[in-house]
Amino acid sequence: MKNKTIITAEPGKQEVFITREFNAPRELVFKAYTDPKLVAQWLGPKDLVMTIDKYDIRSGGSYRYIHSKDGEQYVFRGVFHEISIDRMIQTFEYEGLPEKGHVSLDNLRLEELPGNRTKLTIHSIFQSVADRDGMIQSGMERGVNEGHERLDALLEQGI
Amino acid sequence: MKNKTIITAEPGKQEVFITREFNAPRELVFKAYTDPKLVAQWLGPKDLVMTIDKYDIRSGGSYRYIHSKDGEQYVFRGVFHEISIDRMIQTFEYEGLPEKGHVSLDNLRLEELPGNRTKLTIHSIFQSVADRDGMIQSGMERGVNEGHERLDALLEQGI
Repeated sequence: MKNKTIITAEPGKQEVFITREFNAPRELVFKAYTDPKLVAQWLGPKDLVMTIDKYDIRSGGSYRYIHSKDGEQYVFRGVFHEISIDRMIQTFEYEGLPEKGHVSLDNLRLEELPGNRTKLTIHSIFQSVADRDGMIQSGMERGVNEGHERLDALLEQGI
Repeated sequence: MKNKTIITAEPGKQEVFITREFNAPRELVFKAYTDPKLVAQWLGPKDLVMTIDKYDIRSGGSYRYIHSKDGEQYVFRGVFHEISIDRMIQTFEYEGLPEKGHVSLDNLRLEELPGNRTKLTIHSIFQSVADRDGMIQSGMERGVNEGHERLDALLEQGI
């Protein structure tokens, strides 16, 4: 059975929930999330090239990466509040916004499921409903869906 | 005229707004916020002793401090997403909660006002209304008010 990403954004709220299951043990999903070489192979939409500027993934570390297409660059950065196998909490900012300082906070959980499967839950909070809606309208859904499909493919290879 | 801290928490929302003016230039307020020796002199309620474990205040840095009273310790920690003179964005977690991972995101702005005065605006977002209400009920208002009064006194001395 194919896994499906479910994105929930209740109208008027400044948050988004994302859930997804993976046919792989938690250690493997965690590895795909925390090894920069692997992250570069799946995070984001299929048609963008990902370049990692910095990915110091540990509690207190920070990251910055670039998605590129047709000469356009989209740069994202943040800090890791906590990185552990069941919980990753990090800030997120798109550097290309006209105004700086629009930062969201992502809370990722990895739960072990029976049969060596894993459930991912992402809860993102935003400074405003407008910030959240802007993120959704920027193509977040396609980026998350395609990213998870690429992550599926990577996990199937056993990484 | 005495400055007053205004705390706004609309029912049912997962955010808090705090505004406060200071009779001091922005450079001085920023210094009081970013020099750990000064931070230890004003941040938090009057009757608690503050000990700084770590205060690496720069974009990508992290912090951890302890408020103590009568042998009880209250430990707080987070990471700095951005530190600049007009904007400080950082995560915040109280380590003493029964469950880990309840992290909020604070967005502080420092604006220059005429007459060498400064306006501080804090916007905090929480993972849920319950998290926000728990923070308010924990005595946040007193801590913020007393902290700002102590900061006033520090700024009056010219630091």
